[in-house]
Amino acid sequence: MIDPVLLAELTSLVEPGKVLTDAPSLEAYGKDWTKHFPPAPSAIVFPRTVEQVQAIVLWANRHRIALVPSGGRTGLSAAAVAANGEVVVSFDSMNRILDFNAFDRTVVCQPGVVTAQLQAFAEEQGLYYPVDFASSGSSQIGGNIGTNAGGIKVIRYGMTRNWVAGLKVVTGKGDLLELNKDLIKNATGYDLRQLFIGAEGTLGFVVEATMRLDRAPKNLTAMVLGTPDFDSIMPVLHAFQSKLDLTAFEFFSDKGLAKILDRGDVPAPFATECPFYALLEFEATTEDVGNDALALFEHCVEQGWVLDGVMSQSEQQLRNLWKLREYLSETISHWTPYKNDISVTVAKVPAFLRDIDVIVNASYPNFIVVWYGHIGDGNLHLNILKPDDMSKDEFFAKCAVVNKQVFEVVEKYNGSISAEHGVGMTKRDYLAYSRSAAEIDYMKAVKAVFDPNGIMNPGKIFAPE
Amino acid sequence: MIDPVLLAELTSLVEPGKVLTDAPSLEAYGKDWTKHFPPAPSAIVFPRTVEQVQAIVLWANRHRIALVPSGGRTGLSAAAVAANGEVVVSFDSMNRILDFNAFDRTVVCQPGVVTAQLQAFAEEQGLYYPVDFASSGSSQIGGNIGTNAGGIKVIRYGMTRNWVAGLKVVTGKGDLLELNKDLIKNATGYDLRQLFIGAEGTLGFVVEATMRLDRAPKNLTAMVLGTPDFDSIMPVLHAFQSKLDLTAFEFFSDKGLAKILDRGDVPAPFATECPFYALLEFEATTEDVGNDALALFEHCVEQGWVLDGVMSQSEQQLRNLWKLREYLSETISHWTPYKNDISVTVAKVPAFLRDIDVIVNASYPNFIVVWYGHIGDGNLHLNILKPDDMSKDEFFAKCAVVNKQVFEVVEKYNGSISAEHGVGMTKRDYLAYSRSAAEIDYMKAVKAVFDPNGIMNPGKIFAPE
Repeated sequence: MIDPVLLAELTSLVEPGKVLTDAPSLEAYGKDWTKHFPPAPSAIVFPRTVEQVQAIVLWANRHRIALVPSGGRTGLSAAAVAANGEVVVSFDSMNRILDFNAFDRTVVCQPGVVTAQLQAFAEEQGLYYPVDFASSGSSQIGGNIGTNAGGIKVIRYGMTRNWVAGLKVVTGKGDLLELNKDLIKNATGYDLRQLFIGAEGTLGFVVEATMRLDRAPKNLTAMVLGTPDFDSIMPVLHAFQSKLDLTAFEFFSDKGLAKILDRGDVPAPFATECPFYALLEFEATTEDVGNDALALFEHCVEQGWVLDGVMSQSEQQLRNLWKLREYLSETISHWTPYKNDISVTVAKVPAFLRDIDVIVNASYPNFIVVWYGHIGDGNLHLNILKPDDMSKDEFFAKCAVVNKQVFEVVEKYNGSISAEHGVGMTKRDYLAYSRSAAEIDYMKAVKAVFDPNGIMNPGKIFAPE
Repeated sequence: MIDPVLLAELTSLVEPGKVLTDAPSLEAYGKDWTKHFPPAPSAIVFPRTVEQVQAIVLWANRHRIALVPSGGRTGLSAAAVAANGEVVVSFDSMNRILDFNAFDRTVVCQPGVVTAQLQAFAEEQGLYYPVDFASSGSSQIGGNIGTNAGGIKVIRYGMTRNWVAGLKVVTGKGDLLELNKDLIKNATGYDLRQLFIGAEGTLGFVVEATMRLDRAPKNLTAMVLGTPDFDSIMPVLHAFQSKLDLTAFEFFSDKGLAKILDRGDVPAPFATECPFYALLEFEATTEDVGNDALALFEHCVEQGWVLDGVMSQSEQQLRNLWKLREYLSETISHWTPYKNDISVTVAKVPAFLRDIDVIVNASYPNFIVVWYGHIGDGNLHLNILKPDDMSKDEFFAKCAVVNKQVFEVVEKYNGSISAEHGVGMTKRDYLAYSRSAAEIDYMKAVKAVFDPNGIMNPGKIFAPE
């Protein structure tokens, strides 16, 4: 697929054995966790240094060869899928932690450092890297930055963006830029670092990232509360947030809980069956905080917002309560779920969720809908499970119809069609539901500044011209 | 200065009386807190609506008229100075708070809302707007966003950037963009909102901003600690930061304290005279936190890092301790200080400060240097006081020489020549000390995307071509 002369040139730019073209490698490195686009890269290259990345980008510019960045390949929007003969640039061989600075609490990472590796490193220093999500065991820092990854602690710690002190990037033109130099305060013109965060590799490649750490959380304590309906979750959130610094506020529905309990390895939080559940977490730094939480719980029960609840009394109980939420994604994956990752402002969540439920129920009353998500930040994960007696093709065709209707509701509520998974290829045709035509034009013009030849992850975010 | 026909056209775009061309208005609205560039605008226009701003920008594009945005005019980099016949667009008539959302803790502000007005509004809701600095009584939200204002609580709350949930902007081309729609999670391509934050009005004008609020801080408590030398401040910072969530960590020198005590209206923190002082603040949410702070203090004394100290026991004492730091800028303004606002990463601060001291002392041993700043975020304010027997002209000429040497040290330490004041006109010729030639080229290209005719605050950030 790739001209042998060009391939030889590429091979000469990196160390021996660092270009692969065998079928299993092309298959493995050409895809992410999405399944819609069959992988078809022409080669996989594994640079070990910044200079090698620069050489690859300059080579690609000379020959107009499209490049696709590849990290842990855990993405859910096909942003790292190479489906059109691209050369995949994998950062697996740039996976070292280069430096640590205790005063600034910063860690200099190569882009291929795995999220869990950074989390463990932080822990060794008595510190904490707070961006956490289901794929932290294999996702890489470069990919986290490319998608501005979020996860389960955003209500307290924000997105990946908040933890990027500095970036070294190689632009689509091949320039090496050192952005922000790890400073906290730096008012010297446009903060280009911010453009590269969430750009899905369409402007250039992150080749080094300085990440901030936080102090370690103290005595994390979780509560699971059952509510009589979805709307009651909102005053519960408001009441707890007014009194406590929450580190998480998640929710899931009875249908999700049922699937978890069916596994047999996670205990029910309490006997009372409720249609919705909130999982909240805070640092119980003193006994007073725990007492405040219990008083809030009683207040919520008196108001009729909460039917039953439980508070963790040990690390083990904390972990068990979290399993109710964290195992959901994997557990329902057996039903081939049609997933959507959408967000609105927090106050709009109840009305928005109701509207979506009406749409799905009206068209497909026999679909099981499992809702869960990060209610504290307005991010809802809509999962429609495939009925056992329906073929995959029929199911996905019906979901595509629902999809459009869902996005129309997202647009009506001024929300986002991709809260934390990115656009990639799966959402690119729907971008206009969240961004205006003028915005998209400006984005394309910005891309042209950094990648005039259009070689950086083409067809991602924007549909091919 | 402006063609009467064009002026009539401009006047027709806004309400009666909303264009001023009298000399006192031109003088008042043409400048900020800097004094280097004599104001010379051709007119001042006061739009009241987004549509009027758009009409003004389209008019300026048609006639290639340069526009300068104007907020509270408290800037320290001449970014809002109109020195070349520009039309000043003042946001004084767009100063209303439009909406509040309790669940999301967001406030929709017009750009002319004064910082203290937002702070007071937040307090009324039992909440807190945490970006605070000396000019909060007159600076405006639009200007805060344009410079990504920082201040005294950055160590805990970050810069203005962290509190901007959404922006409506009119670009230099006249397009109205609604950026990010106040969402916490929104992974739909480039976050253009971030580009406009800190752009000093060179890409377009902020016409509406949704700002986030935080919960109100609880029982804020301050300590002032005297240290035997500057270097000792660093382990003190590290020790306190490892145990407590600091809301501030400031420093000042004996020379600064002496000027404050000379005023006669602020009591000395304690009797022991020390060359350097740290002011730190935290929430004493429980008695335990206060005890932790006292134990840390004793540890620092035992280590020889601290000579003496005091902890506030009341609101009144808290306020008095803060005056030692907050009155500095105004107090030394009587000595016509030559000010510099620079930053490095925290760990580099001691060596950096030593290098700068060597330079200033070597060239001008009779200059009094007053250091103060936000040590917790690496931001140092260097103030050189004019000797009484030296003329202003001679003094500033000598400082210009020092300036270049200071910036060479900043570059050596990979720091920022403007930590929080912006570039404007005062730093534009020095930008290359902090940003590479390639970066500056990309910045100019990004500007051209949003402002192809170069009418938005020309000559700011970048020198005129």
